[in-house]
Amino acid sequence: MPRKVREQQIIDVAVGIFAKRGYHAASVDEIAELAGISKPMVYLYLDSKEGLFLACLRREAERLVAAFQEAARGAGAAPELRLYAGLSAFFAFVTAHRDSWVVLHRQASELSEAIAAAVAEARRAVMAEVAGLIRDGITESGRGARLGGQDADFVAHALVGAADSLTDWMEHHPGQSPEAVTLRLMNMVWVGMRDVLDGEAWLPEG
Amino acid sequence: MPRKVREQQIIDVAVGIFAKRGYHAASVDEIAELAGISKPMVYLYLDSKEGLFLACLRREAERLVAAFQEAARGAGAAPELRLYAGLSAFFAFVTAHRDSWVVLHRQASELSEAIAAAVAEARRAVMAEVAGLIRDGITESGRGARLGGQDADFVAHALVGAADSLTDWMEHHPGQSPEAVTLRLMNMVWVGMRDVLDGEAWLPEG
Repeated sequence: MPRKVREQQIIDVAVGIFAKRGYHAASVDEIAELAGISKPMVYLYLDSKEGLFLACLRREAERLVAAFQEAARGAGAAPELRLYAGLSAFFAFVTAHRDSWVVLHRQASELSEAIAAAVAEARRAVMAEVAGLIRDGITESGRGARLGGQDADFVAHALVGAADSLTDWMEHHPGQSPEAVTLRLMNMVWVGMRDVLDGEAWLPEG
Repeated sequence: MPRKVREQQIIDVAVGIFAKRGYHAASVDEIAELAGISKPMVYLYLDSKEGLFLACLRREAERLVAAFQEAARGAGAAPELRLYAGLSAFFAFVTAHRDSWVVLHRQASELSEAIAAAVAEARRAVMAEVAGLIRDGITESGRGARLGGQDADFVAHALVGAADSLTDWMEHHPGQSPEAVTLRLMNMVWVGMRDVLDGEAWLPEG
């Protein structure tokens, strides 16, 4: 069996074990056994427990970003429809791949410098995708002079943070479909965004 | 010096060290030395390194929730003004108490069951405050029949997640005041919420 295929098999098992037991309690012995491969072979391929975890992090982050990108690209030209499709794909992914989400989101960025850097990089990739769609929305609204890249980045942070937190919410509301959650989030955020793009401003004076 | 005062001094030092070094690398020796107290005394008062960390988590969570509550209560009757005041207080707190935020947010909930439970409890307390303000907004809008407690909880999760994520954003934009960040978030979220409360719905068909 080619090395690439073997590696993916090991990572498949490892994502499940890391999600279930956490980084510290996860054992490479158990991962090797479940993957049907010897422990020295796991170390030969992935270098160390940390190397194995980093491979899991990177693969799951790539899959999540790819799901978002593909859905957004396939959704036509309107930025809000692309954002809707991307967010739908995000919520569908985290619902279908619970273990990936736990590895990406719940594990400590404190574990090591390398892991913290990989987590930060994964987040930057998601943020860049979302910020790109917001920027398109700003450009197409004709408000480009008043709102710029920093605004897009601000909105992207708010949206990604909201999506993270709503993934926890979904865990306690298993009856809610990814589409329903996306629609509620779009209603909460996009309707306001559109009004802001149209020049409406909220001030504490009312 | 009374025990209560001593404990607070130890916690003051410990929050700084845990934030700076992370849970694993933090040393009780260093904390004891900086607090000007013997290590056995630290263990006598706070039981263990985990006990010390839990005391830090609980105290900083209480302070954060209290800052939000007090600001919201002092801001009059209109739910959106209370939400604005509460969010302002949140962003002002995390700006002024960077270490508290790192301890509350960045540390691994994987560290132990007790720490995970304390982190979850802190988050629940913040969520309950925010959800309460949203519920008031729904009630006062007269939309109580169509929108309910689940909607308030959904919006609270989205808002708290957005605020978490924007705290990271602020770290990279130190020129942005807590007030400016709050105003942008209110513009993004409240304008949309108000329209949704008014019965407007966004659908992917456009």
